[in-house]
Amino acid sequence: MARFFGTPDGVHAGQFFIDRRELHDAFVHRPLQAGISGTAAEGADSIVVSGGYVDDQDHGAYLIYTGHGGNDPNTRRQIADQTPDASGNAGLITSRVRGLPVRVIRGRHTGSPFAPPNGYIYSGLYSVTSWWTKKGIDGFQVVQFRLDAIEEQTAVEPAPRVELDPSFRNVTVSRRIRDTAMSRAIKELYGYSCQVCGTQVGAFEGRVYAEGAHVRPLGRPHLGRDDRNNLLCLCPNHHTQLDIGGMYISNDMVAIDANTNDPIEQLRWRRDHRVDSANVEYHRSLWRVR
Amino acid sequence: MARFFGTPDGVHAGQFFIDRRELHDAFVHRPLQAGISGTAAEGADSIVVSGGYVDDQDHGAYLIYTGHGGNDPNTRRQIADQTPDASGNAGLITSRVRGLPVRVIRGRHTGSPFAPPNGYIYSGLYSVTSWWTKKGIDGFQVVQFRLDAIEEQTAVEPAPRVELDPSFRNVTVSRRIRDTAMSRAIKELYGYSCQVCGTQVGAFEGRVYAEGAHVRPLGRPHLGRDDRNNLLCLCPNHHTQLDIGGMYISNDMVAIDANTNDPIEQLRWRRDHRVDSANVEYHRSLWRVR
Repeated sequence: MARFFGTPDGVHAGQFFIDRRELHDAFVHRPLQAGISGTAAEGADSIVVSGGYVDDQDHGAYLIYTGHGGNDPNTRRQIADQTPDASGNAGLITSRVRGLPVRVIRGRHTGSPFAPPNGYIYSGLYSVTSWWTKKGIDGFQVVQFRLDAIEEQTAVEPAPRVELDPSFRNVTVSRRIRDTAMSRAIKELYGYSCQVCGTQVGAFEGRVYAEGAHVRPLGRPHLGRDDRNNLLCLCPNHHTQLDIGGMYISNDMVAIDANTNDPIEQLRWRRDHRVDSANVEYHRSLWRVR
Repeated sequence: MARFFGTPDGVHAGQFFIDRRELHDAFVHRPLQAGISGTAAEGADSIVVSGGYVDDQDHGAYLIYTGHGGNDPNTRRQIADQTPDASGNAGLITSRVRGLPVRVIRGRHTGSPFAPPNGYIYSGLYSVTSWWTKKGIDGFQVVQFRLDAIEEQTAVEPAPRVELDPSFRNVTVSRRIRDTAMSRAIKELYGYSCQVCGTQVGAFEGRVYAEGAHVRPLGRPHLGRDDRNNLLCLCPNHHTQLDIGGMYISNDMVAIDANTNDPIEQLRWRRDHRVDSANVEYHRSLWRVR
């Protein structure tokens, strides 16, 4: 079975689980021992935060999470360096690159005001927004991750709110990628290369990045569908250009520069994937480009 | 005075204003008559939602807002087509392209459960997330905008919450651009062309798009500063590559492919703008690239 990203049906943020076996059975966190569920190739789908590392911080709406490796299970001190290649760490790096949602489970521990007194709480979906290596408190190299609660989930079950990070005041969010399981499948199909220009945006250690672009926009009032026939695999530049009226798609599936009406490139297709002409027509009609 | 984007000091979401004069004096909404404050060149900084158009919808956390023009002030019906070139409409389109924050003020009207019974409420910052033209209820072309409350503001003063848009479930936000006044200034300085490759991403009717990229990341634990010497003007592709470990900057300011260690391009500079080498060193140290 393919690795499952997102919140399983019937599970909600805030739900309590008695032990790791229950987490496993509910598809919330599959490994019975490891804190990170994931691999370099697929990304990480869940982590358990349980204060195993002295460098961890839990701020509720965001966490500083130390990767795995080099930790003495008895003393909980670092006794060797961690590396970005260890599979769980590599999985979280891939999740960062691809923007995959990570299920966060908090286990009992003393270092966090958000941890349950016993058992485990599923805290909803988080996004890996940064990662780095540094010398840890014990003098060995550690790999760390910042995970931020995803808005969607906090709408359902607000994450505990501490003080707002002051450096994030007076900022705005100018572009959001709506990434879905279907969008991930399309990116996988194209090997993360842009259907307009073939670009693969390079990331850490050979990972590559692309975006799933919905032609007819999701959400009201457009109500485009999250279907194969409404999705393109694009580089960020062409995705942006499509979304802000700089590029449209003709019925014969050529990407056209909206300012000059010159063709940019014939779209590249893999296997039986095609976009529905009704969706490219809808997209053109937004701005009355004929 | 340059157009001011964002929430003025001393003003908060939820604040009441007795009339348009008070809104003007507080720098919340400068025009005394017009519903949209903005121009094509600068973008729109504020709108007043007051039910002037039959096609408007107010869902609290997001609005469907009809642009201006063609409206009979007495009957409030459309009597002519609206166009994307009318200055307020063109301003909101520029705000969409650039990701500028728009102050939303709700005035008294009967069509919205979120409108005040009298006077005006400043509802915080919204982002223009989509725009389109369509035939309005009265049979004339209207220009419409979807505006979504910006998370930052809803953290201060939650926007009224109605039902969650079902098409936005099970999605995640994979990339966020932290746009600030300083980032906008840098993009302006470079004419929205990428310092690595010179690309200007085209948008609607000659508008162009770029992103302000913080070299040392903002936010904890990095605490990079929102300063000129920590900002680059990049296309979305190179911004992504910088942020996900696919590109680093050498001390002599060459963009380097992190996977091959080959130079991509010498960074282009305008006037006295430079990035501090301590910031590019910090960025490299995140992933131990030497």
